[in-house]
Amino acid sequence: MAKPFILITNDDGIFAPGIAALVEVVKEIGDAVVVAPDNPQSGQGHAITITSPIRLKKVDQFDGIESYACSGTPVDCVKLAKHVLLKDKTIDLCVSGINHGSNAGINIIYSGTMSAAMEASLEGINSIGFSLLDFSFEADFSAAKHYARKVILSMLEKNDQQDSVLLNVNFPKLPVEDIKGIKVCRQGGGKWVEEYKVNEDPRGGKYYWLDGSFIKTDHSEEADLWALKNGYVSIVPSQHDLTDYKRLDALQFLEQ
Amino acid sequence: MAKPFILITNDDGIFAPGIAALVEVVKEIGDAVVVAPDNPQSGQGHAITITSPIRLKKVDQFDGIESYACSGTPVDCVKLAKHVLLKDKTIDLCVSGINHGSNAGINIIYSGTMSAAMEASLEGINSIGFSLLDFSFEADFSAAKHYARKVILSMLEKNDQQDSVLLNVNFPKLPVEDIKGIKVCRQGGGKWVEEYKVNEDPRGGKYYWLDGSFIKTDHSEEADLWALKNGYVSIVPSQHDLTDYKRLDALQFLEQ
Repeated sequence: MAKPFILITNDDGIFAPGIAALVEVVKEIGDAVVVAPDNPQSGQGHAITITSPIRLKKVDQFDGIESYACSGTPVDCVKLAKHVLLKDKTIDLCVSGINHGSNAGINIIYSGTMSAAMEASLEGINSIGFSLLDFSFEADFSAAKHYARKVILSMLEKNDQQDSVLLNVNFPKLPVEDIKGIKVCRQGGGKWVEEYKVNEDPRGGKYYWLDGSFIKTDHSEEADLWALKNGYVSIVPSQHDLTDYKRLDALQFLEQ
Repeated sequence: MAKPFILITNDDGIFAPGIAALVEVVKEIGDAVVVAPDNPQSGQGHAITITSPIRLKKVDQFDGIESYACSGTPVDCVKLAKHVLLKDKTIDLCVSGINHGSNAGINIIYSGTMSAAMEASLEGINSIGFSLLDFSFEADFSAAKHYARKVILSMLEKNDQQDSVLLNVNFPKLPVEDIKGIKVCRQGGGKWVEEYKVNEDPRGGKYYWLDGSFIKTDHSEEADLWALKNGYVSIVPSQHDLTDYKRLDALQFLEQ
């Protein structure tokens, strides 16, 4: 195929090591433009900026790759890329990440990384969100890069789906030789058990700060959480229709 | 049944007329607490605040109803209500809204109103997001109130689902006598066609401001968009599993 054109974004911000890792993978495969937040935007979900203006700044962050820092959310980055910067260009693929931290299971709902990828898929662009199960700034992305390359090439070469495909790809925190392979999974069930740290600011004002831990409630072998726990890269084909189809009949009483 | 206990939130902020309308409905039905953002949070999607503290302020906004203004997002409001303010209380229902503007179709993805409701459902609480197809601050909520009451009572009295139910309820912009009834629907297909207003700030800096119009791509009679267009209140049973189940097989090539 002709050299593909790939849009790169993330939610940890344009200066995060994870997006640098993704740029290194993509530049070997095709032409690319980076449009990413100018500051960390973790947990932004599908937020968009509507009540204030957004800035775009051309930056020289990645050798030979046109790059823009955006003052908005991850979803804003994709919207601006598609409708302003790359208005007349065909985007063959959008990749988002590599996120510092898991977006498996229910985390997809809160994830700016995945929301950016979903926004691209709503525009008819095949898109992939990548996340590594390591929150730290110094995370080792080498195995993630190996598998990100593999997934991107598969999608470019073998995907024959008519409508845009959206993938939620998570990498276990393991060296490449310990990863058992790739598993196509469903979104696993789990929940956050929240605790708030309560404290006082220097002027005596009370504040709350979100903390919490993730509890897996789904131990099925078909779930992404199982795959990751057992040494696989998980891929969940995802989509944006939230209808609870199995309840359409059961809730007919609401029409009365 | 015993008097139900209901958590009320929204995304337009605690001072929006839409939440006042919802409080009026709920206070006739049960006991309630309001926890809502202290400023408008439209388009916040499932954003959560993780890198900064959150403030909660008790306010005297609604006669006889304990109310708190929260500096965070709609999802933060629900998390704080559940895990701090109402830690030891059973919440029978969470209602969010009434939103000024549609959350039908794909809008659910961007909606703070619906994300707050979804957060409550993730906590195992039945929850309902209400939205009126009228953006204006002076919107007439009288028909919306009539039908919100009906839906809340149905859910409290007739719902027998085991797991928490999440409803996306939208009201057409019509007087109550012109509304044909309620329809249980699936999420309709459509997309936003974005345009950015480009302008210069007082110091010559370029900025972008999101604008756009919604295009319906789905004309099926089973979709919420059709119901609303044809004078019905739409109810879409919703859920948080984004897995694209029909593609699990088609994308097996990714495992190779």
